[in-house]
Formats: sequence, structure tokens, C-alpha cells
Amino acid sequence: MIDLRSDTVTKPSEEMRESAHTADVGDDVYGEDPTVNELETRAAELMGMEAALYVPTGTMGNQIAARVHTKRGQEILVERESHVFKWELGGLAQHAGLQVRTLDGGERGVPTPEQVTSGYVEEDAHRPGTGLLSLENTHNSKGGVAISPEKIDAAAEAAHEIGVPVHLDGARVCNAAVAHDVSPARFTENVDSVMFCLSKGLGAPVGSMLVGGEDFIARARRTRKLFGGGMRQVGLLAGPGLLALDNVSRLADDHENARILADGLADAGGLSVQRPETNIVLVNTEKAGLTADEFLTACEEMGVLGTQFDTHVARFCTHWDVSEEDVEVAAGNVRDAL
Amino acid sequence: MIDLRSDTVTKPSEEMRESAHTADVGDDVYGEDPTVNELETRAAELMGMEAALYVPTGTMGNQIAARVHTKRGQEILVERESHVFKWELGGLAQHAGLQVRTLDGGERGVPTPEQVTSGYVEEDAHRPGTGLLSLENTHNSKGGVAISPEKIDAAAEAAHEIGVPVHLDGARVCNAAVAHDVSPARFTENVDSVMFCLSKGLGAPVGSMLVGGEDFIARARRTRKLFGGGMRQVGLLAGPGLLALDNVSRLADDHENARILADGLADAGGLSVQRPETNIVLVNTEKAGLTADEFLTACEEMGVLGTQFDTHVARFCTHWDVSEEDVEVAAGNVRDAL
Amino acid sequence: MIDLRSDTVTKPSEEMRESAHTADVGDDVYGEDPTVNELETRAAELMGMEAALYVPTGTMGNQIAARVHTKRGQEILVERESHVFKWELGGLAQHAGLQVRTLDGGERGVPTPEQVTSGYVEEDAHRPGTGLLSLENTHNSKGGVAISPEKIDAAAEAAHEIGVPVHLDGARVCNAAVAHDVSPARFTENVDSVMFCLSKGLGAPVGSMLVGGEDFIARARRTRKLFGGGMRQVGLLAGPGLLALDNVSRLADDHENARILADGLADAGGLSVQRPETNIVLVNTEKAGLTADEFLTACEEMGVLGTQFDTHVARFCTHWDVSEEDVEVAAGNVRDAL
Amino acid sequence: MIDLRSDTVTKPSEEMRESAHTADVGDDVYGEDPTVNELETRAAELMGMEAALYVPTGTMGNQIAARVHTKRGQEILVERESHVFKWELGGLAQHAGLQVRTLDGGERGVPTPEQVTSGYVEEDAHRPGTGLLSLENTHNSKGGVAISPEKIDAAAEAAHEIGVPVHLDGARVCNAAVAHDVSPARFTENVDSVMFCLSKGLGAPVGSMLVGGEDFIARARRTRKLFGGGMRQVGLLAGPGLLALDNVSRLADDHENARILADGLADAGGLSVQRPETNIVLVNTEKAGLTADEFLTACEEMGVLGTQFDTHVARFCTHWDVSEEDVEVAAGNVRDAL
Repeated sequence: MIDLRSDTVTKPSEEMRESAHTADVGDDVYGEDPTVNELETRAAELMGMEAALYVPTGTMGNQIAARVHTKRGQEILVERESHVFKWELGGLAQHAGLQVRTLDGGERGVPTPEQVTSGYVEEDAHRPGTGLLSLENTHNSKGGVAISPEKIDAAAEAAHEIGVPVHLDGARVCNAAVAHDVSPARFTENVDSVMFCLSKGLGAPVGSMLVGGEDFIARARRTRKLFGGGMRQVGLLAGPGLLALDNVSRLADDHENARILADGLADAGGLSVQRPETNIVLVNTEKAGLTADEFLTACEEMGVLGTQFDTHVARFCTHWDVSEEDVEVAAGNVRDAL
Repeated sequence: MIDLRSDTVTKPSEEMRESAHTADVGDDVYGEDPTVNELETRAAELMGMEAALYVPTGTMGNQIAARVHTKRGQEILVERESHVFKWELGGLAQHAGLQVRTLDGGERGVPTPEQVTSGYVEEDAHRPGTGLLSLENTHNSKGGVAISPEKIDAAAEAAHEIGVPVHLDGARVCNAAVAHDVSPARFTENVDSVMFCLSKGLGAPVGSMLVGGEDFIARARRTRKLFGGGMRQVGLLAGPGLLALDNVSRLADDHENARILADGLADAGGLSVQRPETNIVLVNTEKAGLTADEFLTACEEMGVLGTQFDTHVARFCTHWDVSEEDVEVAAGNVRDAL
Repeated sequence: MIDLRSDTVTKPSEEMRESAHTADVGDDVYGEDPTVNELETRAAELMGMEAALYVPTGTMGNQIAARVHTKRGQEILVERESHVFKWELGGLAQHAGLQVRTLDGGERGVPTPEQVTSGYVEEDAHRPGTGLLSLENTHNSKGGVAISPEKIDAAAEAAHEIGVPVHLDGARVCNAAVAHDVSPARFTENVDSVMFCLSKGLGAPVGSMLVGGEDFIARARRTRKLFGGGMRQVGLLAGPGLLALDNVSRLADDHENARILADGLADAGGLSVQRPETNIVLVNTEKAGLTADEFLTACEEMGVLGTQFDTHVARFCTHWDVSEEDVEVAAGNVRDAL
Repeated sequence: MIDLRSDTVTKPSEEMRESAHTADVGDDVYGEDPTVNELETRAAELMGMEAALYVPTGTMGNQIAARVHTKRGQEILVERESHVFKWELGGLAQHAGLQVRTLDGGERGVPTPEQVTSGYVEEDAHRPGTGLLSLENTHNSKGGVAISPEKIDAAAEAAHEIGVPVHLDGARVCNAAVAHDVSPARFTENVDSVMFCLSKGLGAPVGSMLVGGEDFIARARRTRKLFGGGMRQVGLLAGPGLLALDNVSRLADDHENARILADGLADAGGLSVQRPETNIVLVNTEKAGLTADEFLTACEEMGVLGTQFDTHVARFCTHWDVSEEDVEVAAGNVRDAL
């Protein structure tokens, strides 16, 4: 099976497993795990911010950020196809009581400054007031598009002008950095916090980093406890996480493999394939007369796994555990399947 | 001053005040206020449903409905300019923990069946599941447009096909009934609950009715207590409320006055006036080179009050306390002001 | 029937009904109801505080206070038999997400300063932090005991010393004032807000007042809107409410009638009757070999109504609509019933 | 330093680290991590229940249980010194909107059946209704007392008789099993769910198990996602977790060491030492004329670490990383310190 369902399926490398074997650990609830501490320091440096917090999942990182940035009774502005809105079980309302107001970020999933400004709600006698803008880069639902630093800056500056802080769901922000040939820190110049995942393209088995200012991270650390995310000798995971930080430049391979896969599918009967910017390939199956479900079943029979995104949209995701040869084989098999 | 800010400003009639004077009352928390009981019976009949509950405000009625219809952790579908989303302080998330998903109801503020279907989210491992569709008629933010029974039916049936109950924010549903020359009950044939206001065009000083099935109203009654809405000898307000139920057909006068006002403003320098369908007149001031705020200040100096809806949109609302002559004078004064 | 179930059952006097008939009203959501404004001014004066807000029920007043005084994620300290904990549908957790910590106020339902101090939780990595102390006077569940101003002061000062604000559920604080022969304002000298009911012994048909500092009341006004408590021409109720403010001294009659009733029941077969301090008489039926339910059924057959408080405790409550003769008859009938 | 602060500080054994090195892993969000699956199967067997779920912390396990067992707007019954109430940041109200009602479990922290029955609140027009009883064994705040299976049965049966489900916070339930010489499953015969920690005395670096019926665990799995607890190749932690399951009988050593430590401190100047039943030793410092803080500072200077439980109460906790010799040295050093 060539597993292109998600970059979360990567298995830890031997080097990562060795680091789990040997990592110096302590009780992280007491702040005494040296490997976690090193990981938090290095993650903050990578993002060019003051401090960082290890969290078990990106979902927890995003939800903690939403709660810490806001006050009881406010609204949050999010892109209408964003992960934090679509795939996190309605947590924005459940964990923080936030009313969600969605902005239509168009084909690339990024709101314009004008949209941010007009989506803003001033607190008054009848209206909750806007407490946070959350952006996403790369944008998963839009096919892993790598939003430019300038677009992120523009949306964030518009928010700041009206006094609204900005969180970046950067689960795959390192992919965006590689695609734009900039440091990941380039994307955080105008945001107040960022979450990025160690467990996706960077290849760590578990975990994400929430990064921001020192005060923000101090409050996030307490909120992580509320969520039940305060683990003990978690250096066993932070060791692999440290190695994952070295994998940023390696993401270029995943991007190249995504292009190879997209090219290989481009001439397959009736499929519409979105040009990949990073490691995600969206395939529209409608003109092929198939639902995404039917298409993926056929792919699976030929040894290729993907996921359904919408009735007629399937997603393939390249990652560390698939090689150039794998994606060539995958493209060939899918063509044969049609 | 000719006060066109809202139909909520109407003062109770002498007949209503007399009914407050003389109403037979009891402790409604014990269910012993005969005037309230009569009002609830008659309100249920008017809407063609099993049972009704007196609530102090339309906001409380809508929010109770949202809580009672849903389970913890779900989503609610609402039109993106709807009152329950824009003007109720984010209560959907605060009171019921609901994640709001907005549908764009276009010029008339009513989602199509296709929009309802595609806005539906099935409960799964990552998604909250849709628990309620809330519609609004007449649609306040869209200028009091009177959505047809058929459009309400279509949206509601689409929701029911996917197992989602439907609430109708009918704060001004009696205006819609008059505009379409049907009974208010015509709008509830396919919805599971409706809230309508006694305190707007119907002229009562205070109060709204939440109407639905017997089980729903029993649970709503308990939830009203949670909200702090369980009042005592409230027959003093239910008496005027009963008289308000007789005022449905009188709303035609408000609609006629709105048309007279709109006609009178139509040729005023640069204003764009939306053709009123009920008792609300929206005026766009942009081409007149004025903000809504500047325009309303000028109106106020000429003895006419309205409210700001958006940067360049002002709203005038006709009601029981303004006569045909009043709106003619108002139109003349506004023309003079420009 | 002599209805001693609650002082909420009083029917408005002819004078109150006349005031509903004639009150000058306006739209209170715009702050334009002169009768409401007068009531709020006079209520603030009566309590010796800066500002007041009319709310439809005492429950709403208490719950708004709990939300406005606290931050997201805190604890509230309440007496373990207090109304706000026992009878308000768990609203402290529902409306404000507060974790309730109960203090055992003993026979008189008032925590000592030591209890307040030891119940205090400092905000740290694992603990929520205490955000509010809520007291109750008179204490309903303890039999309407009139807690002295000094006890209220002591508990409140203990809270203030550790930075915790204090709310007083004074639904019947005017009864406490009469019992101690002080002004109601005497009880608010060391608290940050108080709620008192117009609709109980003071005889108004509907409504309560939330009273506190100007900033607090401004925030409470906005929160009232969130709860759906922002009514329109509610001067129809504020008129009777103003007359209710004149009824404070009249409460002495209710207290005298409660004493007469208690004396009349004292020698009835097997009943244990708590000496009333205000208008509430608790009767323990255990030694009479009856449950409270059986006892009350027997009473009802003799034309006397009370309420069940516990398996063997029944409550009788005197009020404006029962005379000295009524309670003498009631006592006789109950004796006959046994 | 001899670290007796908590049994959470244990470092993973070489064998555990090797299992992290070699564990067969997969994406657990897809249910494809064979080591996690094996751990969940074995944990369910150990507890004699149908199914289990790996969670990153005991706090998350308890909070998920509280949310899954209850409906919106209910109460939870907990012992007043229980961990879930005192040390989990008010999560019961935050995550599930539950009003907490505390029972006084006395010296051993276990409510009697009578307390459960009388703490029960029937859902009615004014009261939230009881949704869950949560018990704790061993009881941390009471000094690690090992509540007998019969006491757990009795409280749970009382709850079940009134239709209330029961959760057991069994963070250290394996210690209770060893103390009573029964299987851990003996404690779950009458409860609906149990959480136990791999990361305390059992020695795993991270993680806890939530165990219960199949339907309950299916719902808990979804709720874990809401909390942000759905990790990926978490077999790296499940491997050590599996080995931890073999450590139950080893807890007897910790208990013996706790007794040795307690005996060693018993004759130290002025200390009152609670007889340990498991691995926790509570020391009251009041008669020694010291606060717990002063006492612990003196201990630390002599190379012994403990934690403060109350103004005059310090806690020492034995675990895998301290030997019999360590506790003898510790006791000697503490005696010297005084």
C-alpha cells in the first residue's frame, strides 16, 4: 500500500526512536524535562518568538490559543474552510464560548485586509465584540496552498489596526516556508501566536508546538493543564520532536513528489488535478463520472490510499514515508484504475 | 419628534393599560396566572401549534429555542445577517455552546434548500454535527422583506430531510403574514418552533411568545427558569399581550405607511430607498455623499428619528404610534434636510 | 384557601394596578422609560449604592452578578443551602462556567470569616482561583433567618481582604432590615452588589433590582441583554415596583403574623416549629409521624397551603395577602387537621 | 536528592525505553497503532471492563468521563477533597457545565450510601438533576488511603439505585488493589467507568487509561478529539505503558517503603505522621512548631524533597525510583533536620 492519506501517518525514523530511547527526561509538569525545555527553546527560535509550549496535538494548540487570546463572550474571525472551524468538533464554542464569524478566503483561503476590517464587530450593547483573528497556512482545505508572507502580514495588520490579536494555525507553516523559500519565522512577524505540528511533514510521531510571547505562553501552559495536556516524562516524544525540527528543508522533497504525482494524474481520464504548491494534491473526480468515494475505492484496490474531502474531491498527501518512486507507481496505478 | 427608530417604541394603548389594570392574575411560576394561560393558549392557536410560552423578550425566546432543540457540542445553521447571530451578544455560543455556521441568504435573507443541505455537517469523529436550522421572517437586516411561505417550507423541508429541526425567528412573522395575505400559522407548517413578538408592531409594551410542540414547550419552560425569565403576576403584561393578538390585521397600515415614506424619500437628493415589503424602510445614503450617521443627525434636527444599520444604511420603521400624516411630514422633513 | 406557599403569590394592590394604568413609559432598551429610571434611582438610594438595574427575576439578578463579577474559569463561594446554588438550575456553571465551592453556614446560613478565608483558593497552575463570594439574607432555606449586619460585614470583609468581591442575594433583605430595625442599606456597606426582590414581601407583581457600583451596573445592563432580560415599555411593571419600595416597613406585619402562626402551631401534636425571625415558618413533621407531603395534604384539605422543603420539613410564608385573622384561622385548621 | 514529591517523577526504565525504540506504531487517530490497541485491550482486561482509551493525562480522562456521562445542565457529586474538584482547574464547570455538589467523605474520603442518596437532586423545575457520582481511590488528599471494595460498591450501588452513573478516579486504584490484595477489577464491579494512571506508581513516562463500556468508550474517543488528545504514532508511549501494566504487584514495595519512612519519622521531634496504607505519607508539622513550607525547606537542605498539601501538612510519596535504603536515608536526614 502506498499511503497518501495524510502526512500524519509517517512512522518515526530509527534516529527518532533512538532519541526516545536515550532522551534525558524529567517531570514536565514541574518544568523539569530537559529535552522538552530544549525543544521549546528551539521551537521558539525557529518561529522567531519569545517562548513555546509542547502540546500533544495541533487541535489542542489552536484551541488553547483561542481561549487565551479572548475574553468570555467574544467572537472569533476564521476563514470559512479553516481547520479550526471545520475539523475540531466545534471546540471554539465549547472551550471558549466564542461565536464564530467566518470570512470567505476565496481560492487561497486567506481573508483580505478589507474582509478582516468588515468582519470586525465592535463590542456594544447588542454585539459581542471581536476577540481574535485566526489564519491558516498552508491552507489544508484549499489544497495545501502556501499563502505568501505578505498576505499574512496584510490580514494580521488589518486586525491589529482594530485591536484584534492574530493566531496562525501553522500546522504546515514549514511547508509554506519551503514553498516561499523563507524562514518559518517570516510568517510570524505580524502574528501574536502560531501553532505548528511536529507530527506532520516534519515526521515526529506525536506533538505540536504553540509559540508566542512569554506572557501568552505562561497562560497557555496553565490552560494546557485545564485541557488535560500536561504530561510527565514527555521527553521521550520531545527527543524525536527535536530531530523533526531539522527536517524543514526536507519538505522540498514532499513538494516535488506532490508535483510528480499531480503531473502523473493530470492526463488520467477526466480527473481535474489542482496544481500543488506544497505536499497536498486535490483531485476533482466529477468529470470522471465518479464520486470521490468511488474513486478512492478504485485507488485502494490498486494499492493507493487517499482521503475524501468532499463529494467529488479526494486528497493525496505526500510525506517522508513515500519516495519519488512511490508516487510514480501511485500515479500509474491510479491511471490504470480509471 | 416622529420616532421611526423601531416598532418597539410603541406605547401601550389606553385599552392595553386598562387590561393591565384589571387583568386576573396569579403566580405564573406555579402556572396559576389565568391571563398568561389564556395568552399562551391563544398564541398557540394563532400559530397553529400545540403550546406556547410567554417570554420577556424575543432574544430569550430565540436563545431558549436554540438550547432546547440541540445537544451539547453541536452546530447551528443561521443566515449570516440574522438577528440571532448579529444582535444577541453571541448567545448561541454562550448559552448553548453552539458553533455557528452561517448561510448567505442573499438579498432576501433566506437560505435555499441546497444551501441548507450543503451547510449540513454530519456528526463524526472530527465534526460537531448540525443540531438546528434557524430562519428569520420578516428578515430585519434585509429591510423587513417578507419571505414567502413556500421559501420557508423549502428550507425547512430540506432541514427535516437530514434530520435537523427548524426554529423560526418570527419576531415580525405577523408582518410577513399580512404582506402575503395568509395566516401566521401558514409559516409554521414545516417548522418545529416559532418565536413572535407582542412588543413590536402588535403594540404590546413587553413580551414575546415561544410556540411549538407540547414537549418542546415543557422543556422551554424549564429553560426559561434557567435564564431567569420565570416571572410572577405577569398577567399585567399578558393582558396587553392578549389585545396585541388582535392587532395582526392592523399591521397593513404600517406597511402602507412604509410605502408612503419610501415614496416620499425616493426622489430626495441621492438617497437609494429599498422598496418596503412590510414596515421597514432601508435608505442607502452613499450616493448622497453622506454616512448614515450624518444623514440621521440631519434627520433628527428636522424631527425625524431613525437608526443606523451600516456605514451608509439607515433604517426607518413604521408602527402603531405613527400615522399616515406623520410619515408624510417625516418624508418632507427629510427631503428638506438634504 | 389561605395561601402560605410563598410571598411571591401576592396579587398587586389596586394602587399598583392604577400605576400600571397610568405610568409614563418609554423603550427601556434605549434607556427611555422614565418610570424604570426613577425606580432604578430610588432602588440605588434605598440600598445606599451608586446604581441599579431592573431585572425580571431575582434569579436573573443573581446570575448576572455572578457572571459580571468573575472571570472565565474561576470558582464561586456560596453557602451550601443558598438559593443561588440549590434552586437556580445550576446556572452558576451554565451561565458563567463557575466551579461552585460550598461553605457550611450552620444553622443561620452565614459563613464565618474563617470559613471564607479557608474556602479561598488562590489561582495557580492547578487551581481555578476564587472569583466571588455570594451571601444570602434573609436565608430562605434556613427558615428566613435575619442575619445581622455585623455577620454580613465580617464575611464580606474576610473576602475583601483576599481580594474577592461579594454579592448579596437579598431577595428578602428588606425583611432582614425590618427584623434588625436598620435600613436595608446597612447590609450593603461591605458588599459589592445586592439583588432584592420587589415581587416578594414588597408586593409588586414582577421584578427585582440588581444594585451596585456604576461600572458594575453598566456591565450588568449589557449582560441582561445577553440573558434576554432587556424589556421595552416595562414602566408598566416599574410603576407597581415604585409603590413596592414604600412597603418596607409593612413587612413588620408579615413578621408578626409569622410569629402568631408559629405560636398557634407550637402546641399542635408533634410538630416542631422553628421560631420565625421574619415571614417564614418552618415546621418539622417527623415527630408527628408524618412526612411533609402528608402533612401538607392534610393542611390543604383544611384550606391551608404550604410548600415542602425537605422530607419532613414544610414551609409557610406570610405576606401582604394574608391577615392576622387568616393566620389564626390557618393555625386552628392545621391543629384540627392533625 | 531523594525525590519524594510524587510518584509521577519516576523515570522510564531501560526496558520501557527499549519498547519506545522498537514498538510497532501507526496513526492512532485512524485506530491503526497496534501497540496502542494492545494496550487498550489489556487495560480493559485488567479492569474487567469492555473497552479502554489511552489518554495523555489522568485529568483528561476524568474530565472526558464527566462530560460523556452527563447531559447539559446537570450536577455532579464529588467528594469535597477529591482531585477532580480541587486540582483540575475547575474543569467540571468549564468542560461540561456541571454544577459541583460536594460530599464530605470524612477521614477516608469516601461518601456513605446515605450521603450519596441525600446529595442526589432530582431534576425538576428549579433543580438541575444529578448526572454523575465521581469517587476516588486511593484518595490522594486523604493520604493515599485505600478505600475497600465494599465501600466503593456501597456508594456506587446507592447511586445506581437513583439512576446516577458512577465514575472512579482510580489514578492510583492499582495501589488500592495491592493494599487490599484484590484485583484492580474488583473495584470496578459496580462503577461505569474508571480512569487509572500508567504514569504514577506503575512507572510509565506518560499516560492514563479511561476504561468502561464499549458505547461509553466510543463516545469518550470522540470527546478526546474535542479536548485535543487524539495523538498519532503514540505507540512510542503505549509500549512503555504495556510494561507498566506488569508493575501492579511491584507497588507493594512502594507501600513497604512508605511504612518504613513513616516509622522513621514517627519519633522525629513533634511530627504527626499518618499511618500510610499505600505509597503516600502525610506529615503534620504543627506540633513541631513549623509550617509545612518551613519543614520542606529544611528537608530539601538535607537532600529530601516533598510537597506541601496544606499549611501544616507535607506529603512524601514513594515510587519506583526510591529504594528501601533511600527512604531510610531520607528518614534519617529529616530527623537530623529537625
